[in-house]
Amino acid sequence: MTDRLNRQVILAQRPSGIPRAEHFAVTDANIGHPGPGQILVKNLYLSVDPAMRGWVSVEDNYSPPVPVGSVMRASAVGEIVESNGTRLQVGDVVVGRFGWQEFAIVAETDNVRRVDTSLPASLALGVLGANGVTAWLGLFGIGRPLPGELVVVSTAAGAVGSVVGQLARLAGCRTVGITGSKGKVDLCLEEYGFDTALDYRAPDFLENLEQACGDGVDVYFDNTSGPVSDAVMSHLAHDSRVVVCGTSAIESWQPAPMGPRVHRQVLTAGATMRGFLLQDHAYEYDQVVRRLEPLVRNGELRYTEHVLDGLESAPGAVSMLYEGRNAGKLIIRL
Amino acid sequence: MTDRLNRQVILAQRPSGIPRAEHFAVTDANIGHPGPGQILVKNLYLSVDPAMRGWVSVEDNYSPPVPVGSVMRASAVGEIVESNGTRLQVGDVVVGRFGWQEFAIVAETDNVRRVDTSLPASLALGVLGANGVTAWLGLFGIGRPLPGELVVVSTAAGAVGSVVGQLARLAGCRTVGITGSKGKVDLCLEEYGFDTALDYRAPDFLENLEQACGDGVDVYFDNTSGPVSDAVMSHLAHDSRVVVCGTSAIESWQPAPMGPRVHRQVLTAGATMRGFLLQDHAYEYDQVVRRLEPLVRNGELRYTEHVLDGLESAPGAVSMLYEGRNAGKLIIRL
Repeated sequence: MTDRLNRQVILAQRPSGIPRAEHFAVTDANIGHPGPGQILVKNLYLSVDPAMRGWVSVEDNYSPPVPVGSVMRASAVGEIVESNGTRLQVGDVVVGRFGWQEFAIVAETDNVRRVDTSLPASLALGVLGANGVTAWLGLFGIGRPLPGELVVVSTAAGAVGSVVGQLARLAGCRTVGITGSKGKVDLCLEEYGFDTALDYRAPDFLENLEQACGDGVDVYFDNTSGPVSDAVMSHLAHDSRVVVCGTSAIESWQPAPMGPRVHRQVLTAGATMRGFLLQDHAYEYDQVVRRLEPLVRNGELRYTEHVLDGLESAPGAVSMLYEGRNAGKLIIRL
Repeated sequence: MTDRLNRQVILAQRPSGIPRAEHFAVTDANIGHPGPGQILVKNLYLSVDPAMRGWVSVEDNYSPPVPVGSVMRASAVGEIVESNGTRLQVGDVVVGRFGWQEFAIVAETDNVRRVDTSLPASLALGVLGANGVTAWLGLFGIGRPLPGELVVVSTAAGAVGSVVGQLARLAGCRTVGITGSKGKVDLCLEEYGFDTALDYRAPDFLENLEQACGDGVDVYFDNTSGPVSDAVMSHLAHDSRVVVCGTSAIESWQPAPMGPRVHRQVLTAGATMRGFLLQDHAYEYDQVVRRLEPLVRNGELRYTEHVLDGLESAPGAVSMLYEGRNAGKLIIRL
């Protein structure tokens, strides 16, 4: 493989806020050779995630920032083309933090997981990967929905939100999805089975939310922060649970933007707000994927992939998420 | 008893924000007669609580507002002078929601508790009452402190905060108390055994907080909201717990004042914020008092009472709490 070059997307400059195409550069490097215990992976699909905004930021975050000049951190699905490991073999399709590049060399012990190829391999980046596991653990671990409860989800048509809504419905809950266009409202209703779907850009959003949530929101799965969340927080039921999973409505946290203080609502509702970090749950990851797989297989858990072609489409892809220009899980096919 | 009048403090007008003397009136009424199952209580001590701000407000709260023209809702300790009940007898000293008045008629089943008179009866309003039970259940139920963890308490010299700090120390934690004067800092250090006590009004408060909390706050027992809480929230440790117990720094929640959004800190720390409402824990109340009593008896749990004399001192007392003019649990002795 060493006669081939490895095309890579590197972080060229550090953005303040949302990373856009101009913050990245596409370059070539040598592929290199896997050392002892390492594998060489040829990437098939690259993930594009809202979390990338935090990964390239020097703001307080849950992982150190990607250094300028380094390959952009990303999950990817690939095929092993060379293995010096003992657990994984050439030909295995695997998912891991392989980065925005054509080839990756990683230790086989570095959170590399085999992918079930009886289902589309790309799902290991979405509904059967970080998004699905986040939805499952955030909803059931923090949200703890009970049958008949009202579960509200922001970015409801997104890769995480769509799974949350479907899982909540399977758990016997009434579901309200909040999303950003008429087309996504239809997707929420027709594809993901939300009982109600609301377009937060519609002029009557607050009235519609009041009507849908007036009796009290038991679980709010919050992927946005910002004004949408402010509105939902004003409808919290007693003993409600707020899963803080993402903050896609906020361009920059340096400094934290102002919003209405939440303390009184949290206090008077006896509510719980809790942050969900997938990295705290590595030990549960595989077990949750095993629970999601049959649901995908039998059609109870639906998904949408938004596929871009070619490594060159990666740099501009993160901002698509923040502008709501994706429909479903955004991936790059190589 | 019917030849005597019952002096009462009634809510004369509804305040917007903190209730002050001018919002109340002192009037006389007939004492009346206890009906079947009811008791007549002669009040000995009346409680003054920050929660009264919420009780007289029409803002969203956890209990319906006190109607204008009604006796001010309050906990009190009194002696039974007439009983038509089966459980409680004349001469029993009891605590309950007897209101700001000299005499009260209540059903003996209406959360009336016998007071252990081998300790000062007034403690049933403070360290062995709502304040102590709130501190215990908020700290151990939501805060879940572990030995060696850092516990930060706002209004640390207050009736709840002082108990929280002492219980956290007994649980093997390092404790930082935040309070509002040099005198209260001394009280926190010398009487309540905080490892560190900080005056939030001092010009170097933020630097001192950073020094005390730079390694991360594991439990924040928040009685204030506002800028003090904003500062503490910026030091949350991974998997930290924030007990939202009171909002004394905020004059009015109609509308909610603006502050820095907390979502990013909650997310990146994987933190939990949870509101504590004592009324959700009635079933645990007596059991917690039984655990606090020996600690008070053996001197491991210290308290300070700030006693005002006479019913006429009640109307101006709530605002004393919000202005920090009390030192310890504020009670009215009749």
